[in-house]
Amino acid sequence: MNLRFLLALVLLPIITYAQKPPEVNASRLSKSLEKLAEYGRDANGAPNRVAYSDGDLEAHAYVQGLMKSAGLKTSIDPAGNIIGRRAGKNTSLKPIALGSHIDMVPYGGNFDGCVGSMAAIEVARTLEEKNIQLEHPLEVIIFTDEEGGLTGSRAMAGALKKQALEVVNSTGYSIGAGIERLGGDTTRLSEAIRPRGSLAAFLELHIEQGGILDREGLDIGVVEGIVGIKWWDVTVTGMANHAGTTPMAMRQDALLAGARLIQAVNEEALKLKGSQVATVGRIKASPGAPNVIPGQVVLSLEIRDLSDAVIDTLFENISKRVREIAEASGTSIEFKALDTTGKPALTAPFIQNEIRKAASALGLSHQQMQSGAGHDAQDMALICPVGMIFIPSKGGISHSPEEYSSPEDIANGANTLLNTLLQLDASVSE
Amino acid sequence: MNLRFLLALVLLPIITYAQKPPEVNASRLSKSLEKLAEYGRDANGAPNRVAYSDGDLEAHAYVQGLMKSAGLKTSIDPAGNIIGRRAGKNTSLKPIALGSHIDMVPYGGNFDGCVGSMAAIEVARTLEEKNIQLEHPLEVIIFTDEEGGLTGSRAMAGALKKQALEVVNSTGYSIGAGIERLGGDTTRLSEAIRPRGSLAAFLELHIEQGGILDREGLDIGVVEGIVGIKWWDVTVTGMANHAGTTPMAMRQDALLAGARLIQAVNEEALKLKGSQVATVGRIKASPGAPNVIPGQVVLSLEIRDLSDAVIDTLFENISKRVREIAEASGTSIEFKALDTTGKPALTAPFIQNEIRKAASALGLSHQQMQSGAGHDAQDMALICPVGMIFIPSKGGISHSPEEYSSPEDIANGANTLLNTLLQLDASVSE
Repeated sequence: MNLRFLLALVLLPIITYAQKPPEVNASRLSKSLEKLAEYGRDANGAPNRVAYSDGDLEAHAYVQGLMKSAGLKTSIDPAGNIIGRRAGKNTSLKPIALGSHIDMVPYGGNFDGCVGSMAAIEVARTLEEKNIQLEHPLEVIIFTDEEGGLTGSRAMAGALKKQALEVVNSTGYSIGAGIERLGGDTTRLSEAIRPRGSLAAFLELHIEQGGILDREGLDIGVVEGIVGIKWWDVTVTGMANHAGTTPMAMRQDALLAGARLIQAVNEEALKLKGSQVATVGRIKASPGAPNVIPGQVVLSLEIRDLSDAVIDTLFENISKRVREIAEASGTSIEFKALDTTGKPALTAPFIQNEIRKAASALGLSHQQMQSGAGHDAQDMALICPVGMIFIPSKGGISHSPEEYSSPEDIANGANTLLNTLLQLDASVSE
Repeated sequence: MNLRFLLALVLLPIITYAQKPPEVNASRLSKSLEKLAEYGRDANGAPNRVAYSDGDLEAHAYVQGLMKSAGLKTSIDPAGNIIGRRAGKNTSLKPIALGSHIDMVPYGGNFDGCVGSMAAIEVARTLEEKNIQLEHPLEVIIFTDEEGGLTGSRAMAGALKKQALEVVNSTGYSIGAGIERLGGDTTRLSEAIRPRGSLAAFLELHIEQGGILDREGLDIGVVEGIVGIKWWDVTVTGMANHAGTTPMAMRQDALLAGARLIQAVNEEALKLKGSQVATVGRIKASPGAPNVIPGQVVLSLEIRDLSDAVIDTLFENISKRVREIAEASGTSIEFKALDTTGKPALTAPFIQNEIRKAASALGLSHQQMQSGAGHDAQDMALICPVGMIFIPSKGGISHSPEEYSSPEDIANGANTLLNTLLQLDASVSE
């Protein structure tokens, strides 16, 4: 045995150890997710933790306790957002924030929002446990009522409209009343606003809610952006008439024209290169009797893409087809653009890069992808550079009790979140 | 002036007078229609005389009074039908019946059913006034609740199902309770049944409820038959999914498949020669949100034709297309045939012939046509030979307050009814 060999024998594990990225406590993370899932179940045990429900309030109390045991100093902002703070070494640096939400759609799942929320707290706890103090202050934010319209993050971005407070959700509470229930104060909403540039970065871990990572067997999605969304109400007006006495050739059938429109939407969305999607999800035919030719059809049109220009081009292409359909069917077809649109939100390339590096260091496969769903990160992008980390959703199912991500995938996501945070802390100097 | 000329001068008016067909009192008929229209209006004056409503009851009382002043002996049968009788010369002959209905669909019109009802009574009154006694006994029948499923005529034909009595209409009354309100007795419904062959003929005058006579400028439609109707509930099952995160190529969109089905129904109905019609009038997409790809669509399919074989062929052709649509879209599509079907009912050729002769003698243009709508005459066809006379509907509009037939067209129809009755009385020997 020569000296060099001996030296190698001693040093190798030390070097390996030094290079191994820190990891969260995966089993503790699993347990906090299981515990969170106990809040807001209905009488049959189905998950139904809609924002502002009693279950949501109980979960908020649980989250605050969990934050405290992770060494975070908690507070509730006027929009009802829970904020946990951990001091940094350098008080002149802006905070880096992590977060997501714990509310769900009615009869939703236990992973959407929950994974990112519990992982953010677990990351803070890991720092506490390992005595790692960041240069930057850290904030963990659990946003109010994401599913009801990104309520908490929108308030932080100063983009929550006053009339949104009147909207009542399935709990029977209005958003305004719900914020008060969570400990917020709707008379002081302006104090919840975070000025543009007041955070160094925002990171959100989330389940993909699509089937791409699951189908391709990938560990991590590096989100390049959250798609913009435009909605229209489309009204097709024909002529209601007796289905027995009106010959086929004399009809102005609004539903037949609507059917052609639905096909045109699909064809035009497929025709463009790219990942744009267009959907007709709602339809109402009037008068709606089997023996009456529909005189009016109202349907929804939604288009999503990372680029506003692509959304506009696709809408133009659909409009052109629809003009032909109206003319050929003797109907009139009108589009009414709705106010409930979301602008595309791009993530910061330097954060995407840190996520890729963190995933690679952890030995995880990864792929760049877009987020077809809306997230709190898109409002946070109005304030600071943002990054999003996706993990696989089994079968692409989401907003359903069947939503599922494996403990391993969740741990992979949390570890990627932790290491991206550490890298950003080291590389971001503001 | 020679003798022949003098003779001609004296005889010509006599011959002309003898050949001129008798006519009803058109202005009296208009007035009775106007009076009838006063019953069952809503607070804003809109016609809403749904069967069993207070307005329907008031109209029943009005009709019985009108029948009495026309010399008819009135009674109510156990199904609530009003029957007015006038004796014939020959007591061994079966009665000839005329009739229609006075109920309407919610917010319907003042002509559908009303024209045939008031004209039938006016014909009886004309006979009384002109002292014309028919060989056959005459019955004027005002049928119960035609719009709710041919209730009164179906009871007469012995085809009213017991479960129909439970159906509640827009008045809040069930058919069973409604029949009692009209003076019927649901415990004695079997006594309302008219045995097959117990009437010599049944004649119904009705507005066309279509646009053919109006468009072609014709006076009278000689109905060759009332179309059969088949209904299906069609269920398209795909996979509900997130409209943002599910790529276009990974969707199993039930509404897109439903849209293709609606187009296929239209194309296949147009492809066959003939007057068949096929309609999708009702559609429901679930879950029905703009941001969710529909997982299920339920829609109605109705096919009508004078021939059962044509209905079956068209349904087979549609089914074939639908199998292709399901396969291409990754959905399953199921048809459930409903019980609410009507068999085609042909009118008697000898009555069609008498209607043509009567119209020609009155100098009225006429055309053979089918009835795409159901009528009491189709149930009466189960009992005796039937004939139907159509008059123009302005713009083909019906089941609407905008329904309209001119007083002249109504008088033409009533005169054709009167003269068809007189001819049948002379030519039918049973």
